[in-house]
Amino acid sequence: MGNLLIGQSGGATAVINASLAGAVQEALRSDQIDGIYGALHGIEGVLKRQIIDLRQESDETWSRVLATPSAALGSCRYKLQPEDPARALEVLRALNVRYFLYIGGNDSADTAHRLALAAREADYDLRVIAIPKTIDNDLPITDHCPGYGSAARFIALATMDSALCTEAIPHHYPVKVIEVMGRDAGWLAAASALGKERPEDAPHLIYTPERPFSRERFLAAVREVQQAVGYVIIVATETIRDEQGQSLGAAFAQGTDAFAHPLVSGTAQHLVELVKTELGLRARFDKPGDLQRMSSVAVSGMDRDEAALVGRMAVRYALQGVSNKMVTLERQPGPDYACETGLADLEAIANAQKLLPDHFLDAAGTGVTRAFYDYALPLIGEALPKHVRLNRIRA
Amino acid sequence: MGNLLIGQSGGATAVINASLAGAVQEALRSDQIDGIYGALHGIEGVLKRQIIDLRQESDETWSRVLATPSAALGSCRYKLQPEDPARALEVLRALNVRYFLYIGGNDSADTAHRLALAAREADYDLRVIAIPKTIDNDLPITDHCPGYGSAARFIALATMDSALCTEAIPHHYPVKVIEVMGRDAGWLAAASALGKERPEDAPHLIYTPERPFSRERFLAAVREVQQAVGYVIIVATETIRDEQGQSLGAAFAQGTDAFAHPLVSGTAQHLVELVKTELGLRARFDKPGDLQRMSSVAVSGMDRDEAALVGRMAVRYALQGVSNKMVTLERQPGPDYACETGLADLEAIANAQKLLPDHFLDAAGTGVTRAFYDYALPLIGEALPKHVRLNRIRA
Repeated sequence: MGNLLIGQSGGATAVINASLAGAVQEALRSDQIDGIYGALHGIEGVLKRQIIDLRQESDETWSRVLATPSAALGSCRYKLQPEDPARALEVLRALNVRYFLYIGGNDSADTAHRLALAAREADYDLRVIAIPKTIDNDLPITDHCPGYGSAARFIALATMDSALCTEAIPHHYPVKVIEVMGRDAGWLAAASALGKERPEDAPHLIYTPERPFSRERFLAAVREVQQAVGYVIIVATETIRDEQGQSLGAAFAQGTDAFAHPLVSGTAQHLVELVKTELGLRARFDKPGDLQRMSSVAVSGMDRDEAALVGRMAVRYALQGVSNKMVTLERQPGPDYACETGLADLEAIANAQKLLPDHFLDAAGTGVTRAFYDYALPLIGEALPKHVRLNRIRA
Repeated sequence: MGNLLIGQSGGATAVINASLAGAVQEALRSDQIDGIYGALHGIEGVLKRQIIDLRQESDETWSRVLATPSAALGSCRYKLQPEDPARALEVLRALNVRYFLYIGGNDSADTAHRLALAAREADYDLRVIAIPKTIDNDLPITDHCPGYGSAARFIALATMDSALCTEAIPHHYPVKVIEVMGRDAGWLAAASALGKERPEDAPHLIYTPERPFSRERFLAAVREVQQAVGYVIIVATETIRDEQGQSLGAAFAQGTDAFAHPLVSGTAQHLVELVKTELGLRARFDKPGDLQRMSSVAVSGMDRDEAALVGRMAVRYALQGVSNKMVTLERQPGPDYACETGLADLEAIANAQKLLPDHFLDAAGTGVTRAFYDYALPLIGEALPKHVRLNRIRA
C-alpha cells in the first residue's frame, strides 16, 4: 500500500485531462493504492507542497474532466534545478507517495527521470511513470503522442475551412499564410493536408522546420501556384529557419522559455511581407495560436480514447512494479488501425525529439506523401467533412 | 414567368451557402420561375456574363451546400462603377432575369439598390431582393444578420478554450490577446463573453471600436486583472482606434479594400508589445483570422436555419412583387426566442451600420451587460459546453 501522486506538465492539450481522468479512474479501482493526490502545476506544485486530494472529487467530475480540454491540475514549464530532485523526494516521502505519474512531453520526461534517479539513489521505493502528451508529436519511440490527433484534426479543419474563404474570393487576398505550432518538427504543418482531396486543394505549400527555408524557392513556388490555381494557401510552422539556420520569425521573436527554446511568433508576418513586397500580391495570415492545442470542438475521439488509455496503463504498469519508463503507443500490424501500449526508458525520451521522417514529405519538401496520410488519418478520429462544390455548368 | 438570378457578395461566412440553398430550393418549388441562374463572384459575374445554370445541380447537392461553409458561387468585393448598373441590366435583360437576389452586407445592399434603380429607370420589370449576410452583424433594421451567430459561437468557444490554456499555466504567458474581426462594430468582440460564467473567467477585457482606446486605461486595467486573477485574456476588435481616431493596427496595416475600408491587422501585435514594454509581462496573441467566419465545427444551428429562412423568404417576397428591399429578421416578443422575417428599404441598409448599443457594454466599456447575453445567446445555437474544474481540496 502507498499513495499515488500525479501531475501535468508542459503546454496543455485538448486531451491531457483524459489522461488524468484515465489514471485517476484506474487508481480508484485499485486496492493497492491508498491516497490519490494531484500536484498543482506539475513539479512546481510538488516543490511548493501544493498537493490536492483527488479522492475528494466526485465520479461525475472525472467523467466531465475526461471531456474538458486543458490541464485541470494546472501545468508548468519549469526546468529542474540541481537541488530540486532531492527536495521533491522529501515531499513525496513525507506524503508516503510510492507512485509518481507525470503527464507531459520531452522536458517532463527529463524531470520524471531525474526524480526516479534521485529515488533510486536514496533507496526510496518509488515507481515513476511518464504519460506522453504533446501536440508537437515529437517524442521518440512511441508511434505518436496523445494531443497530436486533436491538434492535427483542428489544423486539418482550419485549413479546409479557411481555404474555402480564399477560394470564394481569390482576387481579394490571393495569398494566405496559416501559422501553426511545432517546436522543431513539422507534424502539425503536415496535418494541414489531411483534408486535401484534389491537387488544387489547400494547402498548396507546407513549410516545416525539417527543411531549410529558401526565400527564392518560396517566392517561385508561390508565384507558380498563384498562376495555376488562382490563390495560394501556405501552412508554415512558426519555427522554420532559413539556410543559415536563422529563424524567419526572429524579427518578431518573443524571447525564450525556461528550457531556452526560442519563442518565435513572427513567421507568418514575415512570409506575408515577403509576398507583398517581392510579388506584389495581397496576403494575410491566420494564427490560431493556443486554439490549436485546445479546441473543444475539434477533439479527435481516437485521441481522447488513447489519452485515457495511456493514463490507465500508467497506473497498471506502476502497480506491476515498473519504474523510470514512459508509456508508449505501439501501432499493431494489420489492415485496421489499432494501438497497444508499451514502455520506453525515460532516459531515451528525455530531451530527444522525433522529426518528420523524409518519406512523409515529397521531393519538394512542401507536400506530404501517401505514407503520411496512412500514418496520420487514423489519429484524427472520425472522417473529415466533405465540402461540396457546384458543377458550375454555364447557362 | 421569368428567370431568377442569385449571387453572393462580400466576405464568406459559415452559413452564406444556407441562404443560397434555401433560395434555390424555394425557387425549385415555384412554377412561376423558369431558369434558376447563379452569378459567379457576385456582380462581377453578372458584368462578365459568368452565369451558371443552377437547375443542373442535383437535389443532393443543395442539401450538402446547405451544410458547407463559404460561398459556393464565389464572392466578390467590387464597388460599382457609374456605368455598371446599365451594363448589368443589359445582361439581365438578355437572360430574361426578372428576379435578382443578392446575398451580402452593407455594400452588397448598395449594389442591389443601384441595380433596382437602373431597372426602374429603364422601365424593366425586375424584382431585386437582398438577403442579409455578415459576421460583423452591423446591418441596420434587422435584429441580427445571418453569419453572426456562427462567428459569435466560434469566438465564444475560442475564448473559453484558449483561456483554459493560459489558466493552466498563467506564469508562462500571463497575458493573451485574441484579435477578432468587426469593421466598425464590436459585435464579435462582445460575443467572446458568451461562455463566461464567473467574474474571474475570460474574457477579462474587451475592446471594441465603439469606445476610443486609451493606452493608460488599458495598461491600468491589465495590471489590475493580472493582480486579481493571475492572468489576463484580452479580446480586441482588429479595428480599435485611439482617442485621436488613429487605428492601433496602423503600424501593420495592409492597405484598403475596394470600398476604401482600411484593412488593419496589427492590433493584437500592438497590444502585446505595449504589455511587454510597459508592464514587463510576457504576452502573446491568437489571431483566428478567416477561421472565425468559416469554421465548419462551430456553426450555430439557429444561424444556419435562419440563413436558409431568409433565402427562402427572399424568393417568396420576389414572387409577391416586392422589390428594392432586404429581408430582415424581426425578433418576436415573448419568453422564448423566435424570429419572423420582414422587409427593409435597400436604401436604408446600403452603406449604413449598426454599432453595439451603449446598453450592451458596461460602464468601463470593457465588459458586456445582461442585456447583451439576452440578445446574443439565442443566436449561437445549442448551449456552450461547460468546462469542469476540480474542487482542489488540499491533501
